[in-house]
Amino acid sequence: MSDPEKVSFRLVASCPDQAGIVAKVSVFIASRNASIVEAGQYEDPRTRTFFMRYVVSALDHDFSLAAFSSEFEPVAKSLQMQWRIANASEKQRAVILVSKFDHCLAYLLHRWRVGDLPFELPCVISNHDSLRNLVEWYDVPFHHIPIDKANKQAGFQATADKIEEAGPDVIVLARYMQIFPPWLCSKYRHRVINIHHSFLPSFVGARPYHQAEKRGVKLIGATCHYVTEELDAGPIIEQDIVRIKHNDTIADMMRQGKDVENRVLSIGLRYHLEDRILVQGNKTIVFD
Amino acid sequence: MSDPEKVSFRLVASCPDQAGIVAKVSVFIASRNASIVEAGQYEDPRTRTFFMRYVVSALDHDFSLAAFSSEFEPVAKSLQMQWRIANASEKQRAVILVSKFDHCLAYLLHRWRVGDLPFELPCVISNHDSLRNLVEWYDVPFHHIPIDKANKQAGFQATADKIEEAGPDVIVLARYMQIFPPWLCSKYRHRVINIHHSFLPSFVGARPYHQAEKRGVKLIGATCHYVTEELDAGPIIEQDIVRIKHNDTIADMMRQGKDVENRVLSIGLRYHLEDRILVQGNKTIVFD
Amino acid sequence: MSDPEKVSFRLVASCPDQAGIVAKVSVFIASRNASIVEAGQYEDPRTRTFFMRYVVSALDHDFSLAAFSSEFEPVAKSLQMQWRIANASEKQRAVILVSKFDHCLAYLLHRWRVGDLPFELPCVISNHDSLRNLVEWYDVPFHHIPIDKANKQAGFQATADKIEEAGPDVIVLARYMQIFPPWLCSKYRHRVINIHHSFLPSFVGARPYHQAEKRGVKLIGATCHYVTEELDAGPIIEQDIVRIKHNDTIADMMRQGKDVENRVLSIGLRYHLEDRILVQGNKTIVFD
Amino acid sequence: MSDPEKVSFRLVASCPDQAGIVAKVSVFIASRNASIVEAGQYEDPRTRTFFMRYVVSALDHDFSLAAFSSEFEPVAKSLQMQWRIANASEKQRAVILVSKFDHCLAYLLHRWRVGDLPFELPCVISNHDSLRNLVEWYDVPFHHIPIDKANKQAGFQATADKIEEAGPDVIVLARYMQIFPPWLCSKYRHRVINIHHSFLPSFVGARPYHQAEKRGVKLIGATCHYVTEELDAGPIIEQDIVRIKHNDTIADMMRQGKDVENRVLSIGLRYHLEDRILVQGNKTIVFD
Repeated sequence: MSDPEKVSFRLVASCPDQAGIVAKVSVFIASRNASIVEAGQYEDPRTRTFFMRYVVSALDHDFSLAAFSSEFEPVAKSLQMQWRIANASEKQRAVILVSKFDHCLAYLLHRWRVGDLPFELPCVISNHDSLRNLVEWYDVPFHHIPIDKANKQAGFQATADKIEEAGPDVIVLARYMQIFPPWLCSKYRHRVINIHHSFLPSFVGARPYHQAEKRGVKLIGATCHYVTEELDAGPIIEQDIVRIKHNDTIADMMRQGKDVENRVLSIGLRYHLEDRILVQGNKTIVFD
Repeated sequence: MSDPEKVSFRLVASCPDQAGIVAKVSVFIASRNASIVEAGQYEDPRTRTFFMRYVVSALDHDFSLAAFSSEFEPVAKSLQMQWRIANASEKQRAVILVSKFDHCLAYLLHRWRVGDLPFELPCVISNHDSLRNLVEWYDVPFHHIPIDKANKQAGFQATADKIEEAGPDVIVLARYMQIFPPWLCSKYRHRVINIHHSFLPSFVGARPYHQAEKRGVKLIGATCHYVTEELDAGPIIEQDIVRIKHNDTIADMMRQGKDVENRVLSIGLRYHLEDRILVQGNKTIVFD
Repeated sequence: MSDPEKVSFRLVASCPDQAGIVAKVSVFIASRNASIVEAGQYEDPRTRTFFMRYVVSALDHDFSLAAFSSEFEPVAKSLQMQWRIANASEKQRAVILVSKFDHCLAYLLHRWRVGDLPFELPCVISNHDSLRNLVEWYDVPFHHIPIDKANKQAGFQATADKIEEAGPDVIVLARYMQIFPPWLCSKYRHRVINIHHSFLPSFVGARPYHQAEKRGVKLIGATCHYVTEELDAGPIIEQDIVRIKHNDTIADMMRQGKDVENRVLSIGLRYHLEDRILVQGNKTIVFD
Repeated sequence: MSDPEKVSFRLVASCPDQAGIVAKVSVFIASRNASIVEAGQYEDPRTRTFFMRYVVSALDHDFSLAAFSSEFEPVAKSLQMQWRIANASEKQRAVILVSKFDHCLAYLLHRWRVGDLPFELPCVISNHDSLRNLVEWYDVPFHHIPIDKANKQAGFQATADKIEEAGPDVIVLARYMQIFPPWLCSKYRHRVINIHHSFLPSFVGARPYHQAEKRGVKLIGATCHYVTEELDAGPIIEQDIVRIKHNDTIADMMRQGKDVENRVLSIGLRYHLEDRILVQGNKTIVFD
């Protein structure tokens, strides 16, 4: 669609609603000889906040994204805008954390390698050593950092250090069974993506399939959400379900749940990687 | 499939698990010159309970279902069996209760009239008078029995009297917005079907679409369940969902929810009318 | 969301792709003191065509949509734009055509009356007289215009006359079992919406459920599409499916198909009524 | 559920319908001191054929499945029954054939290794060498057998020889892009499972995603079916779909199609491995 030699970038922004926002922004873009190739916008009627996501293609070969950004600054300021710009050709760096269940990890590694999910993968971190071989087969560094029940703080500090070293844009909890401490949630706000194996807000916390079996639901699900200080209560990015029957055991649910967990996590992660998500309060706006 | 002149019936039963149940029952059926045309069975591994549903067709024109039942009694007793037999040609009697939302009622009336949902409809009862015209167009008696906040007991007594007069096999709460009192739940145990407009156990109680909007879920749903003393906590019969987006308002959810409510309620009701549901504890076994 | 006293309208357009389209259009809108509250756009990479749909709210009480339109004309011309503007407060006029199956009609009438589907309904036309009572209960004029096998031309001419008299913006074939003649398709191009009871292109033509049963598919579906000269081959607007099993008879499929037909038709019709559909060649662009 | 030390087996059978089939079979099973723990049956109304699948658990430790089978022979004969018995503890042998697309293969290998899909995997065969590393990482023999355009017969003969050597119960075409010759289809009738990347009968043959893009459908799908002499026309086992939008490119469809292909293939294969499928004419009966 866009010429691969020319710069393509995403402008994601929110600001108090007022007339002429689109005009101001689009005129600025046109004045820099760039073209809006994809547009999403939403006006929240309650807070009267305006949200937008543009994919923009430069038309000149000598377009400078740095210059564009610094010149856009006063425009944004005049609109009281919170904004970010992402070069579409630069992949985000994602660190994956995992415990023992390997289906999400195996899925992400495969889709990453064939290029279906565009991210850089500096390393995988686990509180167990059991998935080292899988990760290393993909030539990805694997770090085993145990979380000791007696000294969780130290374990998380070591984990945080290793994460920081990797310099990620996003952290993916691909069935990482440790609860992230508040200070880590806070440090990487809206950058930690978790997959929870229930259709939240049903079955918060541990062993959701066991809870589902106990309640006798006819659907099980999965939820991809940003991690916040309150367990399984962060902004929901994506959800889906799968139908079960009375003769499905918990083992059957766990098996069938794998596909829906993978699908939901990969869709949610893709949204994040393509800068399609804006967070407002405890909810997400997704320009899909 | 089965000869319309010959008796067809459903045998639904549960008993402690042991060897030879199917043999005993099927030999008895064959000995009465009848044929099993549909079979469902399930063995609960925890309680070691056996559940079964047979659709049986008599092969003789002079087959007597009464005689069959009384002769089956000792067989069932020897297996410590709880059982019931339903003549497939006899429709169940259903009383529909409704408040102001008319989509479930309109759906049920239409599907009832064209024969898609096989039941007798002695009357519709509402705590409001607004849906009288719709019901009476179908030549169905409509009873307006208000539930006065100051004297709920009297209202429910009048409702219960009218229900009893109608002699229903099943009571359908088609968006009836009053909470059934425990004594009514108890009187018609596993015979009162409700449609709740959320994927339970999420969003129990009042205004689930408002709760869903607040939590920012990406799916809304509906649950058909038997009514018990505990609000929205009875055995779940059927559930389904519909996908929503960040720009869907509560009004949009309510509109889109109508289709899934109708679908889920009609599927759940059909299961009940065709004797496909067995209740075990707080869960349902559905032979679909 | 938008102030009910102020004009809100939809601008739907397509034009050859070039830089600055959004800028030109949005600047013009801002210059007339109006605000873009909803935006969809798409750039087709093959034909390099740009498609857009804006929902615009005027900010002044004395905004004139007529003046806006005539002043927009030269802007549009300079972009070689095909465009239309629709006042959001003016409902489209829809004529419904139906034969004997009543589920789509009953659904549309109910959703129309409660305001879920916003259209004017001047009349319902049928080649049978059997659904007169249902239509007249809603106080909607019903016209019985038989299509005689021996003289189809005369029947369609009479039908076309009655349609023309009603002056519809859209014609809904709600299980109308006669094939529209090419001259009628051509007269109302991209304004005749049909519901076909299969997931096209599977099972074109007559009796799709019978075809589905014969092929042994595990899903049946429905397709909402614009009617063109080639049978069941027009631009697809919406599709969905429902799962079936080996023991579902054709009658079971027809019953279960009703819900999916209704859902798909109403979603497709809503898209049309809200000016969300642009047709390109034989495909639709849907800004949902 | 069943005692792991005791024999558990599946009895799958079909015969002309008559009274007393269930009685005869279940009495025989009870007489051998075994218990029916799962039952599915279906009576085809057109051909008056009876289909059944029982899961049976022996109650004695010295139960002999060989003795049971030989003693059941005359019972089956008296019912003109076609039947087979499978020991539930013996996994089927599956040979996987693949070309260049690796998603189905990667999925099957992962689920096989963790035990989600119970089969023996003697080898993987490919007409390309590119997936050797992936297969060998799982310690599974990989055979590269090119299919030369100029001499397809020789290539298929070599493939058939290698398959025969492996002695499979089932052959899985996991995106194997060569058309199986009739003699191979015939040799392994109802034992070759293919995944086709469309919701058949739509888009038979090559490049179904390209066909889907051309037709402008709103859903893409996948179909798991038995391979027969007629291309993509064999008995359908399982199907599912995923929703797409006007701005999804063929590459997007291919990416999103992977999940639905994997899910549909693994469900269809599981049905086969658990002896849940009976084929009647060109349709499948699936006891799920």
